[in-house]
Amino acid sequence: MVGTGIEIRASDVTRMIEALASHGRIGSTGVGRLVYTDAWASAMELCREWAELAGLEVREDAVGNLWARLHGSQDGPVIATGSHIDSQCNGGRFDGALGVVGSILALDALRRQVGRPKRTLEAVVFCEEEGSRFAKAAFWGSRAVTGGIRPEDPDAILDSGGESIAEAMRANRLDPLGISTARRDDIGAFVELHIEQGPVCEAAGVPVAVVEAITGIAHFEVTLTGEQNHAGTCPMDLRRDPMAGFAEIASGLIDHAHRAGRPAVTTIGRCDQEPGGTAVVPHRVRFSIDARHPDPAARKEMLAVHERLILEVAGRRGLRAEIRRLIDHPPVRCDPGLVETLRLAADRCGLKAITMASGAGHDAQRMAGIAPAAMIFVRSKGGISHSPEENSSTEDCVAGIRVLAEALRLLAY
Amino acid sequence: MVGTGIEIRASDVTRMIEALASHGRIGSTGVGRLVYTDAWASAMELCREWAELAGLEVREDAVGNLWARLHGSQDGPVIATGSHIDSQCNGGRFDGALGVVGSILALDALRRQVGRPKRTLEAVVFCEEEGSRFAKAAFWGSRAVTGGIRPEDPDAILDSGGESIAEAMRANRLDPLGISTARRDDIGAFVELHIEQGPVCEAAGVPVAVVEAITGIAHFEVTLTGEQNHAGTCPMDLRRDPMAGFAEIASGLIDHAHRAGRPAVTTIGRCDQEPGGTAVVPHRVRFSIDARHPDPAARKEMLAVHERLILEVAGRRGLRAEIRRLIDHPPVRCDPGLVETLRLAADRCGLKAITMASGAGHDAQRMAGIAPAAMIFVRSKGGISHSPEENSSTEDCVAGIRVLAEALRLLAY
Repeated sequence: MVGTGIEIRASDVTRMIEALASHGRIGSTGVGRLVYTDAWASAMELCREWAELAGLEVREDAVGNLWARLHGSQDGPVIATGSHIDSQCNGGRFDGALGVVGSILALDALRRQVGRPKRTLEAVVFCEEEGSRFAKAAFWGSRAVTGGIRPEDPDAILDSGGESIAEAMRANRLDPLGISTARRDDIGAFVELHIEQGPVCEAAGVPVAVVEAITGIAHFEVTLTGEQNHAGTCPMDLRRDPMAGFAEIASGLIDHAHRAGRPAVTTIGRCDQEPGGTAVVPHRVRFSIDARHPDPAARKEMLAVHERLILEVAGRRGLRAEIRRLIDHPPVRCDPGLVETLRLAADRCGLKAITMASGAGHDAQRMAGIAPAAMIFVRSKGGISHSPEENSSTEDCVAGIRVLAEALRLLAY
Repeated sequence: MVGTGIEIRASDVTRMIEALASHGRIGSTGVGRLVYTDAWASAMELCREWAELAGLEVREDAVGNLWARLHGSQDGPVIATGSHIDSQCNGGRFDGALGVVGSILALDALRRQVGRPKRTLEAVVFCEEEGSRFAKAAFWGSRAVTGGIRPEDPDAILDSGGESIAEAMRANRLDPLGISTARRDDIGAFVELHIEQGPVCEAAGVPVAVVEAITGIAHFEVTLTGEQNHAGTCPMDLRRDPMAGFAEIASGLIDHAHRAGRPAVTTIGRCDQEPGGTAVVPHRVRFSIDARHPDPAARKEMLAVHERLILEVAGRRGLRAEIRRLIDHPPVRCDPGLVETLRLAADRCGLKAITMASGAGHDAQRMAGIAPAAMIFVRSKGGISHSPEENSSTEDCVAGIRVLAEALRLLAY
């Protein structure tokens, strides 16, 4: 710790990040902590212990989010901060975890070093931000808090094994019928600390960034159906080969996003074939598309180009194309006043910070629906994320938590 | 049955094809009969019963091929005919099965209608022609007969569940140490009856074809390794995305075979990704290539172009490429004398036949290593094969079996 401001101990950060990583650990640095699994439940229990040790009043809401409160001396809307505890199937140690650890450490430090706030502060640990277990339940925890879960969702949303999120909740003693009680209307500001997950801070040589916008994300599942046939006896010119169509479409979409330039991104992460034999022209190919742009107009145009290409290639190759939009999160602008507060907090910590858009989705974009929201990013080594290689230096993590704590002091004291 | 020649009853053909299809049936017309499974073993038992009812002397060899003998009055090399009983994972009713049914029916008809042959005739039911359970064991049965199995193969060749073919053999009371005893050096000619599996007979308007060459087949498994990353935060221009590389390569290989024109074919039937998440740039993509050409020089050039394209794309995109050649069957020319005999047999049956190359691999190409070999093809409806939609009319099947029986009469009587 250097300079003025709130003191955060590096050893606490390291210890807590490593302790969380031990719940759902894969290999030496990988984490697979899917919502409502045993690994998730034991990690939540750990967070509860930490929050209680920090002198906070802890409660779990109806979907399993954990709230830890530091009561203010005055009435009025709550200043909230936090992030999520679930991970990608084989993700890293910092995604979500840094904001969880940081929010508890920041409230603990403020209570010890500054005292009781005027405004009530709350740290929150959200569940199922990633949608890595329940693809259609991304932002499940923050959706519950902002009223974004429909009554039919808990029974309709299934994991890849066919279990509904309602069943998974009940296995964790959570009642799907009570989800509406998780809604909050008393939050005055929400700040999320998170790793950047990209190379922008590193390229700029800064430990932290203030986030002024969150990109729009659309996920599609595309199914191309052709005609199964023998790989040796069916001439190329007579085939209706969905793999040939997929290859042309995937190349086209990726090239389009590449040529559009930053910040446009399009990813094909998954492709399955039926029947999937070496000597068989497949009958069906199904693949995912993840397409993102923070500018609403540019995003709309990009998605339209993607759809036109899929339909054009499928039509020309005699394939049936079915396009399902699985998620569609519009871009979100962060609250300008809160962005200014975060910049001021970084200044007060003596840290150089940049302002940028987030290429990833975050609980903050949901929370922006009910309160002014903004984010602090911490530099990611090599820009790598959603990978066991994901890493941020302890010094940078401490810097991010100090900015968070300073911002909360500006907002709540 | 019309015209002169051996009589084959249509009802026998239908009954036996349907009876075989009931072993490993998938849906109404699909078949999944993988070698050394229960479905395969019960189908082999059925073939044994049929051969015994046909008055043939039946024995099983060391790998589980079934041989059914009609003793000749003179010594000398055996005239053999047959095909395989295993299927694709979700294949059709006729692939392999037609030649098995046809060989038993032909020998039965010859014995009843013509009497004892001079030369000994044998019907054979081969195992694991497809390589659909053990990818590296394609032509397992005919490889055993022709001495093409190395001592280390039985323990080294695994199915997708990790079981070795040696273990699977022992579960069927077959001793892997005895494989060399399956070798034959007393076969004077081999004729295989098989469905065409392609559209050539249908386009020519003929029920049968005589096969003068069998295409060369190479199977590759290609692994592209890049860098796993977040789908939203890693700019397109900084990615090392193996899915982008795969899409470009697959498009390129398929286009190359297409532009080369018939009979060149290249198929990408399978593609797996790690980790395979919608919001994750994959770390690794692994895919299959099936590339075929019956002309040795054209085939060599085609495979060289494929390899150059893979390495060029991988190099340009910062990916590591590993290319494994899983199988490599050179093109085979059928015996010209035997081809003439088959043409004559078709003439004697009053059938119009064409001469063509096979785009699929067949046990006959292995048998060509120890004896003059050739094939008879039966028209496939719509040219469809390796699919539950695979179909040939009963009339065409009968025509093929009659040509086979007539050819065996020419060779053995």
